[in-house]
Amino acid sequence: MRSTLISRRDLDFLLYEWLRVEELTALPRFEEHSRETFDGFLDLCEDLATRHFAPHNKRNDSNEPTFDGERVTIIPEVKAAIEAFTKANLLGAGMDERIGGLQLPSAVEAAGFSWFQAANVGTAAYLFLTVGNANLLAEHGTAEQIDRFVRPMVEGRFTGTMCLSEPQAGSSLADIVTRAEPQADGTYRLTGSKMWISGGDHELTENIVHLVLAKIPGGPAGVKGISLFVVPKFLVDADGSLGARNDVVLAGLNHKMGYRGTTNTVLNFGEGAFTPDGAAGAVGYLVGEPHRGLSYMFHMMNEARLGVGLGATALGYTGYLKSLDYARERRQGRAVTAKDPATQQIPIIEHADVRRMLLAQKSYVEGALGLLLYCNRLVDLRRTETDAEVAREHTLLLEILTGVAKSWPSQWCLEANNLAIQVHGGYGYTREYDVEQHYRDNRLNPIHEGTHGVQGMDLLGRKVVQYDGASLGVLAARIADTVAAATGHGGDAAEFGAELAAAWQRLVAVTGAMFGAGDPAAAMANSSVYLEAFGHIVLAWIWLEQTLAAQGKDGDFYDGKRAATRYFYRYELPRTAPQLDLLESLDRTTLEMRDSWF
Amino acid sequence: MRSTLISRRDLDFLLYEWLRVEELTALPRFEEHSRETFDGFLDLCEDLATRHFAPHNKRNDSNEPTFDGERVTIIPEVKAAIEAFTKANLLGAGMDERIGGLQLPSAVEAAGFSWFQAANVGTAAYLFLTVGNANLLAEHGTAEQIDRFVRPMVEGRFTGTMCLSEPQAGSSLADIVTRAEPQADGTYRLTGSKMWISGGDHELTENIVHLVLAKIPGGPAGVKGISLFVVPKFLVDADGSLGARNDVVLAGLNHKMGYRGTTNTVLNFGEGAFTPDGAAGAVGYLVGEPHRGLSYMFHMMNEARLGVGLGATALGYTGYLKSLDYARERRQGRAVTAKDPATQQIPIIEHADVRRMLLAQKSYVEGALGLLLYCNRLVDLRRTETDAEVAREHTLLLEILTGVAKSWPSQWCLEANNLAIQVHGGYGYTREYDVEQHYRDNRLNPIHEGTHGVQGMDLLGRKVVQYDGASLGVLAARIADTVAAATGHGGDAAEFGAELAAAWQRLVAVTGAMFGAGDPAAAMANSSVYLEAFGHIVLAWIWLEQTLAAQGKDGDFYDGKRAATRYFYRYELPRTAPQLDLLESLDRTTLEMRDSWF
Repeated sequence: MRSTLISRRDLDFLLYEWLRVEELTALPRFEEHSRETFDGFLDLCEDLATRHFAPHNKRNDSNEPTFDGERVTIIPEVKAAIEAFTKANLLGAGMDERIGGLQLPSAVEAAGFSWFQAANVGTAAYLFLTVGNANLLAEHGTAEQIDRFVRPMVEGRFTGTMCLSEPQAGSSLADIVTRAEPQADGTYRLTGSKMWISGGDHELTENIVHLVLAKIPGGPAGVKGISLFVVPKFLVDADGSLGARNDVVLAGLNHKMGYRGTTNTVLNFGEGAFTPDGAAGAVGYLVGEPHRGLSYMFHMMNEARLGVGLGATALGYTGYLKSLDYARERRQGRAVTAKDPATQQIPIIEHADVRRMLLAQKSYVEGALGLLLYCNRLVDLRRTETDAEVAREHTLLLEILTGVAKSWPSQWCLEANNLAIQVHGGYGYTREYDVEQHYRDNRLNPIHEGTHGVQGMDLLGRKVVQYDGASLGVLAARIADTVAAATGHGGDAAEFGAELAAAWQRLVAVTGAMFGAGDPAAAMANSSVYLEAFGHIVLAWIWLEQTLAAQGKDGDFYDGKRAATRYFYRYELPRTAPQLDLLESLDRTTLEMRDSWF
Repeated sequence: MRSTLISRRDLDFLLYEWLRVEELTALPRFEEHSRETFDGFLDLCEDLATRHFAPHNKRNDSNEPTFDGERVTIIPEVKAAIEAFTKANLLGAGMDERIGGLQLPSAVEAAGFSWFQAANVGTAAYLFLTVGNANLLAEHGTAEQIDRFVRPMVEGRFTGTMCLSEPQAGSSLADIVTRAEPQADGTYRLTGSKMWISGGDHELTENIVHLVLAKIPGGPAGVKGISLFVVPKFLVDADGSLGARNDVVLAGLNHKMGYRGTTNTVLNFGEGAFTPDGAAGAVGYLVGEPHRGLSYMFHMMNEARLGVGLGATALGYTGYLKSLDYARERRQGRAVTAKDPATQQIPIIEHADVRRMLLAQKSYVEGALGLLLYCNRLVDLRRTETDAEVAREHTLLLEILTGVAKSWPSQWCLEANNLAIQVHGGYGYTREYDVEQHYRDNRLNPIHEGTHGVQGMDLLGRKVVQYDGASLGVLAARIADTVAAATGHGGDAAEFGAELAAAWQRLVAVTGAMFGAGDPAAAMANSSVYLEAFGHIVLAWIWLEQTLAAQGKDGDFYDGKRAATRYFYRYELPRTAPQLDLLESLDRTTLEMRDSWF
């Protein structure tokens, strides 16, 4: 039976026919792997996601975690799913063998993980956060920190969190006030309150490893004075056994519109509920050097942004497949040109407007999945490349694409879910079907790990201009390569190539005009619009890449890729023209708007 | 304290400064009224909505109606709110004095009702459906039907429903199969199942009056054989007292993403649970003539479509006001050009991107409210006009605008709620704040009372071309009048007028090209895109009208209207250009897409 989570056929196309990830096995890091081990991993992910994650997705939503003031109660299926996942060593899928991982390429790991996010994003979130936490500590932690905290996470005994936001400092990390007082023994004592901490408390695992941003008194103001600490829920003794309860206290759970399976918490550090070692404050261990916490955290944040984009994509993808099934089964109405009520009603997929809604979804979710796998392959290439100049190119490209890979799926795969509801009609609005939950779950994604607004400011104010536009230059070169290849093929591909080239040139020209006017406030005022136009052009590039990978191949699957590309170029890319006109005009409507006029 | 439901200042502007509804009091129908009675009515609506509807909006959502197999249980605040509303005679606000109504203009009634929808759309829905039902019966029912059913509805003793859809026939009413067998006494016996019936069962009132579409055996096939029946839950004796229980049985409640306060039901008619008068089938009374049921129901449907648009607008409006308050209070980050972390964080309304999100909401909700009040005033003018030719103009205009007035707010005021969440950041995603519920509630509106797809087909396939384009012609003339007035004023208004004229001319040219190609399937394939482009151009017209009404007036309120108009012309109207290009190309991507390619 075809899965309604993610299309394996599509994953195979993207990984092997387009990105040729099996070529990675020629590199020393991946030399133990082969197409067979990749396939086996993907088979395993599909199987576990289908058997252990999908079945309790609705129950996760309708039975959200509760807190009685002492303990958090979560439906037991969550713990069982996490155990199934970690017993199969999937938590270490991409990690080094030296710490017990499988050392798979990130692109393959991401493809596999998308099954779990599609099946049950609430349960998958505990794993997603733990992987990010473990990867950060494996990269920046000491050998002792790796032994004490990373290995138990890989084994599934501990989970991890990232503690950045505070009630008064969400997007503005410069304003965090959690303090970390150095102690004589080299440890720190943390005091403060952290907000929006997913997986912040539960009893799913023996212990929880919090990675916490805090300020060491006397350090620089703002983001330059932020340090990073490991703060475990229970202290861990030298032999790995659990010690005293640390002073990290659950202040309360947030009750959300969606993503209800994941606890989302307010945590108080050092409020005095527990006094490990007899002193005040939560015990923390510095990661790396003082005041460099934000750069370490961005290691995790960038990975997490790709993960958020992947989760948004996975929710869009499963909604698409479910609405496709529904459209094939549900009969309603007749063709525009055949209204005889004596004839049988037709499956709604035969209505052009329903096909439009399905094609739109297909173009959003398969496009987004392509972008995410492309970015994850860049992670692999950057990590393994020995030529410093080439490695830098990969890094530059990854940096400019990460925000798009986070925000574009968060916007457009949410729109895919919106369309999936619409295809279902009234049924889609009921909790009897899955799509309304996907829509609610997906609405989180434009908010966390940097809102749309933050991503827009980051793209236009930093990534586009950094290193004299070097990131933009690398992307321009890749797009030019794709256009050149498309031109060589002629036909539709050449036509789309010309449209992509024109859109890209216009984007570059507009970018120059915006900064050339010498009015940074006006240039930045519409950075969210810039992000959207930029994203649509990047996706047009990804779709042209997919069409090129399908070139010369016959069959329904490839015809579908060509049709989705055509849809994207006819219906989607043209949206960018008025956006770019607006940006070029340096319109001051929002800047001139006064509070009192609202 | 300023209300966060609807802005009274805006209502006053729209009703009096723009639409000059007090001029209606010169007409015989409204001669008992005055600006003072209108204002008193609006004051009352604000007061009752604030005191009796808003307080239980969240409880309605988190305690949805339950059905134990015998009775439906609803939180008691709903009954109390309905009683407060009907005791004030608000149910009859727009109805004739002869049946106990206040005979207020529709425009004023709609303005007042928007408070209730903004405060609590779930509770307001019972009233909304009852008004529509009572208006239909008052127009097409017999004197006896009016006495037995309409008067008790106006008095608040009965509520009403509309029963159109069936499980196999949602959008396709030609395919309903509920049967109505004529009886010797002139009544009918109905058998069948109705789906998605809001307010279909409850114990909020003594009785429920169902208006049911059914087929009399032997009648024409399809929509031409549909008749309309009154089917009360309890039979009503000649003296008005309640008689036997009719055979209308609640088969179950639908559990929805939002709009949870309103029961949404599957009703079985004539399943044999009750046998009033000893015979099988639910007792029904024919309304009007046989086989003309759909035209009567469209009387209610068109009114209901304006009501759905108004509800979508009201939800968008309250979300806008709440996000505006939040943006003024919440401090986060600093100006683009002032990053010193030692300075205090600024209210987020000072960020250009937040102002963009607020301006977008303002332009959607105040624009939509303007359109709805404009349409409701057309209802008043059509009803009171004595010159047949002028009355016909009003009818033609109302017919072409009704679908837009339903669908545009359903799309864009939902987007306003999406932006309201985004302005709130993580807090907006929690059930601690209101906006996530508004977003869930509002998601129903693009589905019921004719989906977007149905509205698009209706607009392009029927309304635009009907009577040789006469409806389109009337709209064209009104837009030309507005453009001429704007040109006379010069400045921004003249500039916007020129842009509106150009967009309208392009729309008309594209419409001609689409039908001129002799390929109706291709012309109709993108009718949803047509609906969206058409809607945005209509809203640009409404905004230009508002700016003209503000012309020459000073102060923050009017400056806000001008800024929102500018926003709409800079950010929104240009979206239509690529849509119109697509439509003109008669693109066949969706038509050529095959099922097997998905």
